[in-house]
Amino acid sequence: MTPDRIRQLRDLYRSHLLDDVMAFWQKHGVDCECGGFLTCLDRDGSVYSTDKAVWLMGRATWIYSALYRLVEPREEWLQLARHGYDFLTRHCFAPNGKMYFNVTRDGRPLQMRRYVFSEVFAALGMSALAAITGDEAIRRRAIEVFASMKRYFETPGLIPAKINPDTRPMKSLSPRMCMINVADAMRLIDNDPIYERTIDACVQEVFHDFVKADDGILLETVTPSGERIDSPQGRCMNPGHSIEVAWFILEIARRRNDAALARRALPIIDWAFERGWDREYGGLLYFVDVEGKPSHYIEHDMKLWWPHSEALYATLLAYRMTGEERYAALFEKTHDWTFAHFPDREFGEWFGYLHRDGQPSSLLKGNMWKGPFHIPRALLLCWKLLEEMSGAT
Amino acid sequence: MTPDRIRQLRDLYRSHLLDDVMAFWQKHGVDCECGGFLTCLDRDGSVYSTDKAVWLMGRATWIYSALYRLVEPREEWLQLARHGYDFLTRHCFAPNGKMYFNVTRDGRPLQMRRYVFSEVFAALGMSALAAITGDEAIRRRAIEVFASMKRYFETPGLIPAKINPDTRPMKSLSPRMCMINVADAMRLIDNDPIYERTIDACVQEVFHDFVKADDGILLETVTPSGERIDSPQGRCMNPGHSIEVAWFILEIARRRNDAALARRALPIIDWAFERGWDREYGGLLYFVDVEGKPSHYIEHDMKLWWPHSEALYATLLAYRMTGEERYAALFEKTHDWTFAHFPDREFGEWFGYLHRDGQPSSLLKGNMWKGPFHIPRALLLCWKLLEEMSGAT
Repeated sequence: MTPDRIRQLRDLYRSHLLDDVMAFWQKHGVDCECGGFLTCLDRDGSVYSTDKAVWLMGRATWIYSALYRLVEPREEWLQLARHGYDFLTRHCFAPNGKMYFNVTRDGRPLQMRRYVFSEVFAALGMSALAAITGDEAIRRRAIEVFASMKRYFETPGLIPAKINPDTRPMKSLSPRMCMINVADAMRLIDNDPIYERTIDACVQEVFHDFVKADDGILLETVTPSGERIDSPQGRCMNPGHSIEVAWFILEIARRRNDAALARRALPIIDWAFERGWDREYGGLLYFVDVEGKPSHYIEHDMKLWWPHSEALYATLLAYRMTGEERYAALFEKTHDWTFAHFPDREFGEWFGYLHRDGQPSSLLKGNMWKGPFHIPRALLLCWKLLEEMSGAT
Repeated sequence: MTPDRIRQLRDLYRSHLLDDVMAFWQKHGVDCECGGFLTCLDRDGSVYSTDKAVWLMGRATWIYSALYRLVEPREEWLQLARHGYDFLTRHCFAPNGKMYFNVTRDGRPLQMRRYVFSEVFAALGMSALAAITGDEAIRRRAIEVFASMKRYFETPGLIPAKINPDTRPMKSLSPRMCMINVADAMRLIDNDPIYERTIDACVQEVFHDFVKADDGILLETVTPSGERIDSPQGRCMNPGHSIEVAWFILEIARRRNDAALARRALPIIDWAFERGWDREYGGLLYFVDVEGKPSHYIEHDMKLWWPHSEALYATLLAYRMTGEERYAALFEKTHDWTFAHFPDREFGEWFGYLHRDGQPSSLLKGNMWKGPFHIPRALLLCWKLLEEMSGAT
């Protein structure tokens, strides 16, 4: 990458983040009446459902806190982060302490799920807000939510298994990748060695049980001891997940100056592109069967906003850390396809769900899963990395 | 429709059913070693997963019994129906009497779901087998499974709600449409008036609570008293479901010679085509938001095998019952699009999952939902109706 290209990208990612993507969410996605954030937004930002996704309350709290910390201490961002925290603490916890999946506009409970991904994103958001405010009550709450999440993920049976564990015992990549990322975030507000220990244990488990380096794959589901399962679920690779967990680990390696860890994580990005990049239409496929057998996921060949967001930052970080031009090439390939297909030139932000050929399947801007998170996080992290690179060049 | 066209279609549906679709399933989809049926078949019939879908054990039992009853008493079909029944009774019931969703090849339990759709298809299959064999033990078992299904569907709280019923009470079309169809099938083997009463109650509930005739829609989800719910789920119409429940009710009307009931059911087909037929690419969309707002279903604009199968028979039956040419036109339109896109000319049977533009998203022939049911049922019922029409012309 030339210095000119780096500066050009730096300016593009900054303005796309602030003037387009976050401008859209700040204009349309804040509920001034009932608190929290509205994410079920149509193409033009109009609200098509007022139900609130708890994941996105935590995620929006995170992005506003991160903008405040990494861009500039704008009062508006601080207020929006607090706005998310307030809704989370007032309406998103069940009496037993577990968090809901979604609630009504005014915060009445709709759905409780088995998993604790609401806790993952609440801990992320709360710890980021505690970091910028230094507020002790918020800090304590973030630590509590992290502990609850960890307990659910680590206590056998606490999250009921969907598949009978006597017949087919299995474990999933998701809890491990979540714990790596959230534990790393918690370090900002808490010196407890539990976070580094959690990171070490989860990273170790990812490489020992989920990575099959000889075959160049990272699996989503394996047996508890890391053996492959011969079923559509057991053969499933999620290139977006692979790429996301790879940069979670690369950031740890970079912070710790651990070149050996980086060398183990980098190939995960290569594998995801080798298996997941669509040679016919471009873009990253959503699910891939590692033996080329049919997927059981109806959306397997769609192109979604978040794997492409994650791929932008992962490839750029890999390039920054290694200087290898092939990561620059993967970044440019992803950048070109992403910016050619996802952004909505008319109303701003990105379409989320494209058909395999790149045509939008839906024009919505948000729902219970898509909101102000993957896209602005990737744009922010890329921008800051490009800034560092342009300073360094 | 001209007499020539009717005879041409009759011969086509017969040969497509017997020489193509059922030939595929009889060749590739029978597990002679462990019992039951293998439905996770790739394009060429090779097995990509040996997990067994309980829905499809009941459904295959039904189709083989129906072929025996409606086509000819072939010993092979009788044996295959018994083969399905044996697997169902041996491996598909949990100790508490509820049926699993899927089991391993050798019948060990994998997944238990909240709903009782396994019971729906088991009751269908078992009653059909009881009808052709006159076997009293099978008959009693079918009656038991029907009673269990009915109890789950009708007892509040027995199927745990996904959405908090205190916050958003709701009920779904599916249990009502299932009960209409299964109760009608049970009449073949049991004179108990409970079946006609169940049909009457469910038909009444469909028209009173789920049909919104002024707006030309049949909703999938409403409040317990039939009010609309302003959410993506509450605005969701499933054209394939609409069409399927319409023909379930039309068959009741035809059998009872109830012209008023037929007149109420027929418009449901028209609405489904008005809202569900894709004016750009043809074919029936999978989910439609009745206010044109975004759908929360990632597969909303895909074209699936089963709505098209159901539409073939529903439109043909509507034409047979009314003589109205517009139903013949809807049938021909559906027939043309379906036969142009779904059948696999190379390996037989149909692709199940097409993109909006009609290109296959996956080449698989079966999975936990697609197996020998919707396609052969529609072909069989169309063929027999065309036979009747060709005799009548």
